[in-house]
Amino acid sequence: MDQGNIVYIGRKPVMAYCLAVMTALKHEDSEVILMARGRAISKAVDVAEVVRNQFISDLVVKDISIDTEQLESEDGGMRNISNISISMAKGK
Amino acid sequence: MDQGNIVYIGRKPVMAYCLAVMTALKHEDSEVILMARGRAISKAVDVAEVVRNQFISDLVVKDISIDTEQLESEDGGMRNISNISISMAKGK
Repeated sequence: MDQGNIVYIGRKPVMAYCLAVMTALKHEDSEVILMARGRAISKAVDVAEVVRNQFISDLVVKDISIDTEQLESEDGGMRNISNISISMAKGK
Repeated sequence: MDQGNIVYIGRKPVMAYCLAVMTALKHEDSEVILMARGRAISKAVDVAEVVRNQFISDLVVKDISIDTEQLESEDGGMRNISNISISMAKGK
């Protein structure tokens, strides 16, 4: 898997990431992975659904996995943050 | 699947839903499904991860699926909202 096919979901609007997903799929014509942490998880699901419903109808969700990471918070302590990865591919 | 084993994630704190998940698993000793829409999706992932990491270590995520629903908005129009369902079970 090419690193270029991972789309990290952050604070930009949903459509910005939809565009990134479609660009990734145009270049590689294969698979794209959406990665998000914390509150961006909801947005990752929105991006997946918007691309699938409005732009690329043969896009299928291959796998979704969730996990926990430890991140250092501003006060120096460690805190747990959930993440999601949604792997999608143009299906047959 | 018993209706009682579906936990709908809303505006309560994460721990409230963790408790609901653990209660559901105690009664049925089988499977529980977390359902969430929109911004509660991130919280659903948090609930799944907190229960798995801190309370029930043999809990496994069996399946995660995402979808889109049409809901009527306050101004009477329809809008799309993403949802997630996370199905979890004890053991193998």
